[in-house]
Amino acid sequence: MLLLDPPLITLTTDFGHIDTYVGVMKGVMLGIAPQARLIDLTHEIGPQNVLEASARLEAALPFFPRGTIHLVVVDPGVGSERAAVIVRTAESLFVAPDNGVLSLPLRRQPPIETIKLSELARPYFREPVSATFHGRDIFAPIAARLASGAPASRFGLSYPNMDLVSLKDPTIDPCTVSGDEAILIPILYVDRFGNLVMALRREDWLEASNGHPYGSDGSASVEFQAGALRWRGIVTTFAAVAVGAPLAYWGSAGRLEIAVRNGSAAQLMGVQAGDTIRMHRVVPNDGT
Amino acid sequence: MLLLDPPLITLTTDFGHIDTYVGVMKGVMLGIAPQARLIDLTHEIGPQNVLEASARLEAALPFFPRGTIHLVVVDPGVGSERAAVIVRTAESLFVAPDNGVLSLPLRRQPPIETIKLSELARPYFREPVSATFHGRDIFAPIAARLASGAPASRFGLSYPNMDLVSLKDPTIDPCTVSGDEAILIPILYVDRFGNLVMALRREDWLEASNGHPYGSDGSASVEFQAGALRWRGIVTTFAAVAVGAPLAYWGSAGRLEIAVRNGSAAQLMGVQAGDTIRMHRVVPNDGT
Amino acid sequence: MLLLDPPLITLTTDFGHIDTYVGVMKGVMLGIAPQARLIDLTHEIGPQNVLEASARLEAALPFFPRGTIHLVVVDPGVGSERAAVIVRTAESLFVAPDNGVLSLPLRRQPPIETIKLSELARPYFREPVSATFHGRDIFAPIAARLASGAPASRFGLSYPNMDLVSLKDPTIDPCTVSGDEAILIPILYVDRFGNLVMALRREDWLEASNGHPYGSDGSASVEFQAGALRWRGIVTTFAAVAVGAPLAYWGSAGRLEIAVRNGSAAQLMGVQAGDTIRMHRVVPNDGT
Repeated sequence: MLLLDPPLITLTTDFGHIDTYVGVMKGVMLGIAPQARLIDLTHEIGPQNVLEASARLEAALPFFPRGTIHLVVVDPGVGSERAAVIVRTAESLFVAPDNGVLSLPLRRQPPIETIKLSELARPYFREPVSATFHGRDIFAPIAARLASGAPASRFGLSYPNMDLVSLKDPTIDPCTVSGDEAILIPILYVDRFGNLVMALRREDWLEASNGHPYGSDGSASVEFQAGALRWRGIVTTFAAVAVGAPLAYWGSAGRLEIAVRNGSAAQLMGVQAGDTIRMHRVVPNDGT
Repeated sequence: MLLLDPPLITLTTDFGHIDTYVGVMKGVMLGIAPQARLIDLTHEIGPQNVLEASARLEAALPFFPRGTIHLVVVDPGVGSERAAVIVRTAESLFVAPDNGVLSLPLRRQPPIETIKLSELARPYFREPVSATFHGRDIFAPIAARLASGAPASRFGLSYPNMDLVSLKDPTIDPCTVSGDEAILIPILYVDRFGNLVMALRREDWLEASNGHPYGSDGSASVEFQAGALRWRGIVTTFAAVAVGAPLAYWGSAGRLEIAVRNGSAAQLMGVQAGDTIRMHRVVPNDGT
Repeated sequence: MLLLDPPLITLTTDFGHIDTYVGVMKGVMLGIAPQARLIDLTHEIGPQNVLEASARLEAALPFFPRGTIHLVVVDPGVGSERAAVIVRTAESLFVAPDNGVLSLPLRRQPPIETIKLSELARPYFREPVSATFHGRDIFAPIAARLASGAPASRFGLSYPNMDLVSLKDPTIDPCTVSGDEAILIPILYVDRFGNLVMALRREDWLEASNGHPYGSDGSASVEFQAGALRWRGIVTTFAAVAVGAPLAYWGSAGRLEIAVRNGSAAQLMGVQAGDTIRMHRVVPNDGT
């Protein structure tokens, strides 16, 4: 794969901003690859929330140039026998623990080659390797060496079709839903504004909408229910509803989002990641 | 305007640190302008608080080199018809929604030319343009192309004297205040330490102080009142008062600030942005 | 000292992420040294907590390349007569107020030369120098000039053995503890996960363990007590204990850490920085 010049590495972790964990990883990386550009994707993944990291990285992928290296360290199994991998796709290189965190990104960018870090990689680790911080001692130095042009094959055996650990993706497939059924859509994560990013993809919805019982115009034919709140339709902008009113829209991450105009949906609806919002079909102009 | 080499772009948003919004904007920008240096001014502007963003950016301006590009995305009108603009001053380029957020910065750096983004800019947007995230799809790519040397005129029509949306600036003009009047000074924003940054500029105060009823030496002739707390004078360092005592001083942002030594003024006084602190003249040595 | 190319500067402050203080310091630095790489070590040091900054920087040092400039602005004495210093070691340059914040780092990297900023440095300050923000007006410009290759001697007189202000380091020396004594180990700081980073260094422990009453194998012969919680031994990974159970381990910062698997030790034990955890020797296999 063609690397960028200067190389570009994104970081996605659950390390937060209080500690020096991220800064120390950057010190390790710039010590090896001084020209690398480092972009913090987020460090506020919920502690050990592999699914959240996976969903957030998937949504961010299309906005990075071809040749970007994505380093993910959300690693509840650190110190155990879980593998560490490099995955090459047509667009990107990923460096991460093999714990499912790449599941959603790799559905968007299918793997071409997977390298499982082996004894071959050991000379490039920072020694002694800590039992609790492989981000610093294993993942950062390997990502930086890839950024410096080292071939992934230097660090382990290459598997064209390696079975990576796979997360159960809670994303709803609207094709499997019959017209009269209500769907309980899980909340994938909540953003800073209290908007709910839902486990329903716009592209799946569009694909299903041709001949789908909900009809091709989801904007009028669905009703949402969250606690005592009910509202109808999918709108295109916040301005379409009154201040304080709930709304559903296709968000910038390519997923259905639920918000309250000038308010926090999470707070007003009393919901959090993992909870569900009910969506069901309404017959247009049925008077309810 | 001479751009810096490498180009320098500051980011001011209300996107916070939990989400990937900022990281994604950086991915878009470094994909277009790989050499650009990106400085986070702040991403913790209160959600949709255009005035806070305007005041914080104004205070920060003098510390950036000539040729800096300032990108501001605090954008409650995203998805509506509000315009997007590029403003050129003798010192900087600004890229922002036309919602008043540039009001305070442009009083410090008068605009030389304003470009309203038009259909000319559309080929440079990220398509499809999201209805909720113009930071990613419009502002970031335009700022990055400016950083790469594209002339602003490529993106829209140029107006030498365009009327931008203007915020009502709550900043007090001390020239308009008579000597016996008390002034209620609004709190512009509160910093991490709980210090209150007030809507009173030092330079306005100095200008007014020649012949001003409060006298040229504000350090002794004013008394402040916040709830039950009263104190006199404007001091130069925290060390001038006892631990736990309130103080007023000219802060590093060029504005009056109110603090409590080794404590949080906001917490102790029970105040927040938008509240006011009372200041009135006292006759020196009047025994009160 | 050989500087890195491009130069590398780390920032450690208590300025947080709400304000523009850090962004403004970066503007000042990149205006002087446009090629410098800036790494945020942390900006969430507890307000004015010089000891926390000192301990965190000490732990991070080994992970930065030789030639790094470490800029520290945790500065409760700003505006007073406290000195500002540049310290050169075999590995690094430090720029900081002389308030003890370099105490712990300089035990790891002994100073070769200390420069106390004098009138010689004044032409390089940003004028007017604020009484409350020397990070912007003094420390940032000096660090950036060092990054640009200016010799430290340009900014003040050089002292080979200057007595810097020294913090009382609460770190326990296990050599001084007799075998039957319980040790009350202070909590140095708490990380994002609620893990407790303790004032006991692994290297001191190993040095002391040869012939030490606790025995060379600390993993079985010590018992910890925090409130009502008691547990035995020092383990190597979180996986060694059940979910929800407390554990002690040698952390990635080279210090003893105390955690709760999949939980927050700080929260569950009701402790914070400065509190102590009791450790005492147990006779192996004594049946308690």
